[in-house]
Amino acid sequence: MTTTISAVSQRKFNFSPGPAVLPVPVLEELRDELLCYPGAGCSLLEMSHRDKQFLEILHGAEASLRSLLGVGDDHAVLFLQGGARLQFSMIPANLLRGTGKTAEYLITGSWGKYALAEAIKEGSAKAIYDAKSTQHDRVPVAGDYQASSDAAYLYYCSNETIQGVQFPTEPDCPSGVPLVCDASSDFLCRPVDMSRYGLLYACAQKNAGPAGVTVVIIRRDLLPLGSADLPGYLQYRNHAENDSEWNTPPTFAIYALGKVANWLSRDIGGLAAMRRLNEQKAALLYDVVDAFPGFYQGHAQAACRSLMNVTFRLPSDDLQAAFLSEAKALDLNNLAGHRSVGGIRASIYNAMPIEGAETLSQFMTDFANRHAS
Amino acid sequence: MTTTISAVSQRKFNFSPGPAVLPVPVLEELRDELLCYPGAGCSLLEMSHRDKQFLEILHGAEASLRSLLGVGDDHAVLFLQGGARLQFSMIPANLLRGTGKTAEYLITGSWGKYALAEAIKEGSAKAIYDAKSTQHDRVPVAGDYQASSDAAYLYYCSNETIQGVQFPTEPDCPSGVPLVCDASSDFLCRPVDMSRYGLLYACAQKNAGPAGVTVVIIRRDLLPLGSADLPGYLQYRNHAENDSEWNTPPTFAIYALGKVANWLSRDIGGLAAMRRLNEQKAALLYDVVDAFPGFYQGHAQAACRSLMNVTFRLPSDDLQAAFLSEAKALDLNNLAGHRSVGGIRASIYNAMPIEGAETLSQFMTDFANRHAS
Repeated sequence: MTTTISAVSQRKFNFSPGPAVLPVPVLEELRDELLCYPGAGCSLLEMSHRDKQFLEILHGAEASLRSLLGVGDDHAVLFLQGGARLQFSMIPANLLRGTGKTAEYLITGSWGKYALAEAIKEGSAKAIYDAKSTQHDRVPVAGDYQASSDAAYLYYCSNETIQGVQFPTEPDCPSGVPLVCDASSDFLCRPVDMSRYGLLYACAQKNAGPAGVTVVIIRRDLLPLGSADLPGYLQYRNHAENDSEWNTPPTFAIYALGKVANWLSRDIGGLAAMRRLNEQKAALLYDVVDAFPGFYQGHAQAACRSLMNVTFRLPSDDLQAAFLSEAKALDLNNLAGHRSVGGIRASIYNAMPIEGAETLSQFMTDFANRHAS
Repeated sequence: MTTTISAVSQRKFNFSPGPAVLPVPVLEELRDELLCYPGAGCSLLEMSHRDKQFLEILHGAEASLRSLLGVGDDHAVLFLQGGARLQFSMIPANLLRGTGKTAEYLITGSWGKYALAEAIKEGSAKAIYDAKSTQHDRVPVAGDYQASSDAAYLYYCSNETIQGVQFPTEPDCPSGVPLVCDASSDFLCRPVDMSRYGLLYACAQKNAGPAGVTVVIIRRDLLPLGSADLPGYLQYRNHAENDSEWNTPPTFAIYALGKVANWLSRDIGGLAAMRRLNEQKAALLYDVVDAFPGFYQGHAQAACRSLMNVTFRLPSDDLQAAFLSEAKALDLNNLAGHRSVGGIRASIYNAMPIEGAETLSQFMTDFANRHAS
């Protein structure tokens, strides 16, 4: 089956912060295989997670992620459910509870704050950096925080989706302290040095697939830490020892994620190429923000502008409403900022085509030319 | 887009215990809408969970379940992640921890046993009935157990997928004690009296949809019980107060589940009609088991034979292997029993067409005629 022109032509540019745009070739494959997975006699939606064909899909998705990110044997790759919210609890339940140590958090936006609130239920946890006095418009630089060399772990969120603030690279972390990262909204957007991480996780629905699966990459030496009295699902080693099949995994979401990873390798050429494309797309929008500095008020400091979520405000609520309404008329959808902060947010994840960023960039220029006084 | 003959003709009868067979009309709808959900400009896989169109899908799925099962306003309907395994912990975490009470479990198979093992981590919990001395071939009848009138709750698994043992109706439960049911593998297979339940839950991948979503129907007066120090995701009221959007729900799995519920109403005619069909399909298989009593050795006692999972053994491992191999050659797939118990298991969930049960029934008769001495 091939793409019908009508279905593709009905598609609009989707700047949703997540669930978010997926690559069209991935969607076409999912559609073509939906009624009957090749050679299986049934849909992937109906296939047992113990089936040899599904195990190939599961192991293939893991191998693709390992290859893209350079994940070695010292880390396990897990496919879990429950999203980042469940990770907010699972991380301290496994790595903090009962250790007598303190977990340290760098707070650069809303998701870091929510994560810390859950950690406090599990043990001693505190923020050693919090940019709230500047409305979370920045990430720390050298000297902005002091991390303890005996902390349970150092936690940060690499890209704050709501604020549009992204760490340009990993924060400094004392040797021996596991670095823990919520990469939900910038997973696979660029290469990372996995050897620096104790644990890196991402819910899929921003940059890696549909909602319903969360990837957790955890250094194997951390697996024994989880106490035996944890709820079974919350214990990482149950999942690691059972190849993510301690219980039935979200099979279709894993299958879609594997296809996205293949698309990144095959069609894009890997994460370094993906970063260059993401930088091009982001520049198209930030350049307009910078060209109309009084009109478009960018939220993030220049050094930590997100490649994924471009956030800015206009001079008035009326102008923001007009901006959203005119954008929608041009098939530029889902540009409203998060309800907690307002403003405009253009989420330009990996699968947003460059044409989407170009169209939005042209519209922003045109809108500013018409409305900037 | 209409069904291509090739894709349908490649489909085989899938007796998998879960993930399991889904209705072909549901799969066709999912396929036809995959690239672009009608009017949305994007795939459902890409649609924000806050989008008005997704909220219609979410609320529609809930309304369909309420209508099919007769769920009133006194129960909340939640769409969660983590499967039955996470419910094994969430139930005692919310309804037992800190109450000073004891939770009582009826153990009629493997899943009840696993559930009790998790409950013991959260508080006082015990089996008041366990059919292990007869290899979990039966459910209790009046007088087989004494339930306490001050228990935290009475827990049972309505259909034990591995053993193929199903409660014909709800077990007796003292008034005032919440009845809690794992209905994962017989959800929506017949009408139930929801007024009898404190909490009923089911992972979707047996009878209600693809893997990745778990339906929890909980009486609202139980929501305040969960202690504030529970991990946020584990607290039912967080989900109830936020319309299952406390965090991003598994949108595609919910959408598919809603379509299965619509199919049950529209194509089948509701749960009473579904039960009649399920009884017909089960009779086709159990009648052959009964016709060759020395050859096919059914596991469950006659009074509690499962409508969903028909379990039996053959006189030797060689005959079982031959049975599976000949069945597969006839496109009767996934008939091996669970690896923990062996034997044969034919899972004939709602979406298994009657032709599948007929074909298997004929094969069983033929096989017995050729091999029974």
